[in-house]
Amino acid sequence: MAEKILITNDLEKLEDYLHHDGSSYTKIVILVDENTSSDCWPNLAGLCPSLENAELMEIPAGESSKSIEIAEQLWNSLQELKADRSSLLINLGGGVVCDLGGFIASTYMRGIDFIHLPTSLLAQVDASIGGKNGIDLGDFKNLIGTITPPKLCLIHPSFLETLDQRQINNGFAEMIKHSLLEGGKHLELLKSIDIPSAENLQELIEYSIQFKKGVVELDRLEQNQRKMLNFGHSIGHAVESLALSNAFDLLHGEAIALGMAVEAEIGKLKGIGNEKFNSEVLELIQRHFELSIPSFMTAQNLIPFLQSDKKNKAGEFLFVLLEAAGKPIIDVVVQENEIHEAWHQVTVKING
Amino acid sequence: MAEKILITNDLEKLEDYLHHDGSSYTKIVILVDENTSSDCWPNLAGLCPSLENAELMEIPAGESSKSIEIAEQLWNSLQELKADRSSLLINLGGGVVCDLGGFIASTYMRGIDFIHLPTSLLAQVDASIGGKNGIDLGDFKNLIGTITPPKLCLIHPSFLETLDQRQINNGFAEMIKHSLLEGGKHLELLKSIDIPSAENLQELIEYSIQFKKGVVELDRLEQNQRKMLNFGHSIGHAVESLALSNAFDLLHGEAIALGMAVEAEIGKLKGIGNEKFNSEVLELIQRHFELSIPSFMTAQNLIPFLQSDKKNKAGEFLFVLLEAAGKPIIDVVVQENEIHEAWHQVTVKING
Repeated sequence: MAEKILITNDLEKLEDYLHHDGSSYTKIVILVDENTSSDCWPNLAGLCPSLENAELMEIPAGESSKSIEIAEQLWNSLQELKADRSSLLINLGGGVVCDLGGFIASTYMRGIDFIHLPTSLLAQVDASIGGKNGIDLGDFKNLIGTITPPKLCLIHPSFLETLDQRQINNGFAEMIKHSLLEGGKHLELLKSIDIPSAENLQELIEYSIQFKKGVVELDRLEQNQRKMLNFGHSIGHAVESLALSNAFDLLHGEAIALGMAVEAEIGKLKGIGNEKFNSEVLELIQRHFELSIPSFMTAQNLIPFLQSDKKNKAGEFLFVLLEAAGKPIIDVVVQENEIHEAWHQVTVKING
Repeated sequence: MAEKILITNDLEKLEDYLHHDGSSYTKIVILVDENTSSDCWPNLAGLCPSLENAELMEIPAGESSKSIEIAEQLWNSLQELKADRSSLLINLGGGVVCDLGGFIASTYMRGIDFIHLPTSLLAQVDASIGGKNGIDLGDFKNLIGTITPPKLCLIHPSFLETLDQRQINNGFAEMIKHSLLEGGKHLELLKSIDIPSAENLQELIEYSIQFKKGVVELDRLEQNQRKMLNFGHSIGHAVESLALSNAFDLLHGEAIALGMAVEAEIGKLKGIGNEKFNSEVLELIQRHFELSIPSFMTAQNLIPFLQSDKKNKAGEFLFVLLEAAGKPIIDVVVQENEIHEAWHQVTVKING
């Protein structure tokens, strides 16, 4: 099923949708976090009369909300609010809200309709597109979830004006990934941006969403092509999980940026990529991210997290590596010693 | 997607399947409860060399295992067993094992393959067919779940030989429901059975499975026709939930039997059914169930559970009522006072 994705700076399009396609919902519940509750909800409520009687469910901001405990609280809240099978959940927030809300909706009463209104750049170009949702199991990211597309994903670039530069860069990491996977004009456009902002990203956001949407439509259940979107995410997820378990403040995009640099290096070690391409990748990443590696973050400590990676098969690490921009190779078996070596190489390069 | 359902007394058919279609699974995990672990697993293991390296996960028998806590334990177990996306879960047990196992598998790593090997009559003719799975949220039955079909559902009637009469009757309630919904030869065959047993049920099991499978294939996501399968289940689920919250020993089928009697009575009150048909229904039910109603079980106490019924829409109770055998009417709005009245009538009839 192709998802309905609408990129618009006119929030009243949501009212159009709710007024027409959504008029038979028995109840509308909005999932927000403490930030979107104050930064985005009042504006939205003012523009959409259909949301007049909507109920709000608020969660703390941050990855730690993607837990079974919070999921249970939200299921209970929906039950207490008397949400039924004909109710709608609107996820108003970043990746955490979209991932968690998508999971809650796809399992409550065996599935109710939901809409994503992503408010962060990361959620707009990545988390809200493609139907994947999930919660974390202990330190393991997104181990539990479903693949269920929202009824509508409404991308409102003006929401980005509420974000600080670190949050913008957080989403920009996934845009770098998309441009490296597609190459060509997409990558050229991305390279031309010095400091990404709500103002200069509009065209690139459309490129990024169209690219991801196209890949997902070829392979919604991730049997083949969709796997390419995991570039940077084998190392990146392990970095993110290790940071999480050490209560170290690291955003998803920051982990993925480091992941892309290390995975490019692994590609070179395996004779798939080359030094020139890797230098370009590292330059692009260092332009936008101040990569600093805390002492607990070692290849040794990353391995247990890599062993629980959803992409593995029969205990082997399966990575996406790049031959060049626009030329991903999926399901490449990577050895533990190659991870150690590449991690070492990148660390040396970063530390200059 | 039509499910593959195999009715056979030859368990080696599972080995054929695993050996051919299932040869690429990286790991096979079997979910059992304390009963099937000793009654069914040794026999199965002996017949299927492909299960030589399978891992076992065991849960306590009974509805209380369909909880978020047990679900979390099982997700963690799969992770510790290093089950990956290419692993297989086999659910060897009754309705609880199939419902819980289907939910675990459909959400672990966003969905892994699973097979149902239902061992109870209830699971063979009902719980394992149609892809519905779920866990309970507090006292609310199956509030959380997905609709995901198994790769294979293998019905092995010989498993029934391990069941006592109460467990046979438990499944027979759903067979009564199927026969009332289809009418004709199906109902005649069912009426001819005095005491159901593993020996005299073989033909009727096939009728029952074919009927449910046909209904589900018309409407997998329960938009229309599939709703008819909820006959007896509005009152029945409320009765079951109320019993559960009072730690009163009542099986699903026993609750559904009472539910069908009360819902037939509601049909008469609304001018949909008639007294003659209801007498037939009650006679059929009383032949197989000793209906006794504990003092806490009142219409008053059932209402809160009915209010959380997944079939409700906009706060209205939507029931399936029968005009006659083979003539179900879905989405009938029922009032609270009609429930009180029908409950009273049936109680009087039962108490003689």
